[in-house]
Amino acid sequence: MTTSTPSRRAIVLLSGGLDSYTVAAIARAQGFDVCALTVRYGQVHAREVEAARAVVGALGITEHVELALDLRGIAKSALTGNSDVPKDRDVDATDIPSTYVPARNTIFLSLALAWAETLGASDIFLGVNALDYSGYPDCRPEYIDAFARLADLATRAGVGGARFAIHAPLLHMTKAEIIRAGLALGLDYGLSHSCYDPRPDGRPCQHCDSCVLRARGFAEAGAVDPLVAAPPA
Amino acid sequence: MTTSTPSRRAIVLLSGGLDSYTVAAIARAQGFDVCALTVRYGQVHAREVEAARAVVGALGITEHVELALDLRGIAKSALTGNSDVPKDRDVDATDIPSTYVPARNTIFLSLALAWAETLGASDIFLGVNALDYSGYPDCRPEYIDAFARLADLATRAGVGGARFAIHAPLLHMTKAEIIRAGLALGLDYGLSHSCYDPRPDGRPCQHCDSCVLRARGFAEAGAVDPLVAAPPA
Repeated sequence: MTTSTPSRRAIVLLSGGLDSYTVAAIARAQGFDVCALTVRYGQVHAREVEAARAVVGALGITEHVELALDLRGIAKSALTGNSDVPKDRDVDATDIPSTYVPARNTIFLSLALAWAETLGASDIFLGVNALDYSGYPDCRPEYIDAFARLADLATRAGVGGARFAIHAPLLHMTKAEIIRAGLALGLDYGLSHSCYDPRPDGRPCQHCDSCVLRARGFAEAGAVDPLVAAPPA
Repeated sequence: MTTSTPSRRAIVLLSGGLDSYTVAAIARAQGFDVCALTVRYGQVHAREVEAARAVVGALGITEHVELALDLRGIAKSALTGNSDVPKDRDVDATDIPSTYVPARNTIFLSLALAWAETLGASDIFLGVNALDYSGYPDCRPEYIDAFARLADLATRAGVGGARFAIHAPLLHMTKAEIIRAGLALGLDYGLSHSCYDPRPDGRPCQHCDSCVLRARGFAEAGAVDPLVAAPPA
């Protein structure tokens, strides 16, 4: 009788942004086989999905699912086209900006949970961040903990004794710390896409919250953002 | 200065089955404006979506969203075509059958939550049932409670003080009690569709768990199922 090795597969929510790229690399560095899940949810910055594919290639990820789920009819947000993406805002303000997408992380984690259970995996990674996080409620530690408890109750695997782990390795890191960690792992951030409102040629606008936080992160990390230094071909 | 009346809109997850039809009618009877959400998730019994439309018409629901979200690639189940729908099973067995769809209710409630927050509503109804429920983990009271707590943490509305209510009015009812309640509300169950594996002409198979539970419910309620007595035109 042989003992089988437990599965080390993990689902990683991969938008194609700087954070999720770093998370996917961290999961891989921790020994997980990364199964990447990208959702086309009607985001105005669908350019990020192309970035997700580039990241998948660069990290040598063999399982990547792109799921189409058009949230524009039910989730009002600047990111689903209901209003203009705010520019040159004070990104340290404590109000929740119009780029908040109602229930987005709950929807994405639920989809990741379905795939995890189907694969017999119990690890889910996502790139939420409680510091440079734009004030989104579904990026807070207490939210992540609550989802993990829900996952155990929601599933056949949980009833059978599995305990789902929701890994948010960036939760308490600044953007600069995230970038340093990624650079130490050899990541090419020129492959990622963060901008909420890219120019027609795909280049970042440099004025939305996501661009501002990214630029500040690179500056604080003492690094050059390859996306800004040289635009993608 | 005038005082505005608080919104009485509620999201109702409407599959087109007997249970969700009854729940929509209960929500309406409680004074809610029903906003019905139906998901095409790649279910083998897509016939139920047509039933959802019929129910929407019969109840005079003015807001109905049908969302396409193909779960077949990430959620393995007999209901997403990964195996045959079991027939003539002991529906009182305590194991979780192959018709369980991983994380389905969590996905559906998350989508309902997005729409609720977008509409400024805080009431969500679904037709889960803890008695005649086929053993699904995401139909248990403790799961429903956990989702409500998550919803408060997950959303801008929750941060702002809203408390989401997840209404599961059928939770502790038998199928016979559900049918009696629906008949008392004047429902035409000939419009609903419960079968997991309908025949080519759309008629119920009479052998899957859902058909067996429905037939037992009608028998115990002392009523005739119009779907069986006279097939839909």
